[in-house]
Amino acid sequence: MASEKPILYSYFRSSCSWRVRIALALKGISYDQVPVNLIKDGGQQFSAEFKALNPMQQVPALQIDGITLSQSLAIINYLEETHPNPRLLPQDAKKRAQVRMIADHIASGIQPLQNLSVLKQMGEKKMEWAQNCITSGFQALEQILQHTAGRYCVGDEVSMADLCLVPQVANAERFKVDMRPYPTITRINKALLELEAFKISHPSRQPDTPLELRA
Amino acid sequence: MASEKPILYSYFRSSCSWRVRIALALKGISYDQVPVNLIKDGGQQFSAEFKALNPMQQVPALQIDGITLSQSLAIINYLEETHPNPRLLPQDAKKRAQVRMIADHIASGIQPLQNLSVLKQMGEKKMEWAQNCITSGFQALEQILQHTAGRYCVGDEVSMADLCLVPQVANAERFKVDMRPYPTITRINKALLELEAFKISHPSRQPDTPLELRA
Repeated sequence: MASEKPILYSYFRSSCSWRVRIALALKGISYDQVPVNLIKDGGQQFSAEFKALNPMQQVPALQIDGITLSQSLAIINYLEETHPNPRLLPQDAKKRAQVRMIADHIASGIQPLQNLSVLKQMGEKKMEWAQNCITSGFQALEQILQHTAGRYCVGDEVSMADLCLVPQVANAERFKVDMRPYPTITRINKALLELEAFKISHPSRQPDTPLELRA
Repeated sequence: MASEKPILYSYFRSSCSWRVRIALALKGISYDQVPVNLIKDGGQQFSAEFKALNPMQQVPALQIDGITLSQSLAIINYLEETHPNPRLLPQDAKKRAQVRMIADHIASGIQPLQNLSVLKQMGEKKMEWAQNCITSGFQALEQILQHTAGRYCVGDEVSMADLCLVPQVANAERFKVDMRPYPTITRINKALLELEAFKISHPSRQPDTPLELRA
């Protein structure tokens, strides 16, 4: 069982799914992808079949080594520990802490507030709500990056923080957030998007990407 | 600098601050506490002075070893790496992944949605909103714990997951969530609250706890 190919349950547009796709690509782990459409049929993540697999009824979920994991950063930490090369956490403990701080700022402080399930309840205030969440999160992030960034979020090595940054910027663009106040975020995002692992994991290139959104 | 006593900026009632206080207590790290009142003066976390310290304008923040960290789980991971005893992550990689999955489910999937800053915008729907977020998160958590729990969230050792569980249950109680459907959560919470580290870090026993709420 443990040697079978991992299966990633994901949705092309889910930013948390994209984080995990980047990690799998960077680490050269081949996997099968099972699309879970968060819109169709009232949300396929709510089906009894998927709930049995992941009680959190969210993507991503990863079946690997005989277990099923959910929560993108927990999955990425597991991949980091079981496939340490290339590393996604710096060797220095203080830098590692900065990486985790940035990753958690996005994963706990920004993304959950502009998640599909929250926006559904916002009705016509949806767009404004999402913009406010992302804007206030990006103001803090821009300041933090001015202290930590090199070519990427923390120094010059790609880290877990970068895996969170790029999908969050894509969400900001979808919600038409004005990115001009965030030159550091913008610069790092652009540098990361040039990397192959970020390209092949992009929402525009997934098996479930609708034809009209394909790159 | 690095040998100075750590300073924790926290608020007695903040569930994320409590997580860090438990970690500090379990690991026997002595620290000074600076209260940041999230209500008074329109929120002291928004002051220019605090913003310079933590651009995220949130508690907790920990000054330690010459750096300032924020985001509770990033702080706890740093403490785990620099003060490994007693450990808060199991030795087995799969169990570690389960611990992180549960911690992230609470830290990214439940707490941010019932955070003070979100509730402020909900007006009179505040209570109902918080209850719905916690209820749907706890339904998933109860199911997950049925697979992972021993005496505590994952097996019989206290872990990062437990540091997230207890403060989240306290929030649930504040928002009058009916806990009867969650016997496993309730049982583990009770067992944890018997431990000294959870007692001394409790919101009812902090320097900034108002007199009428003191234990």
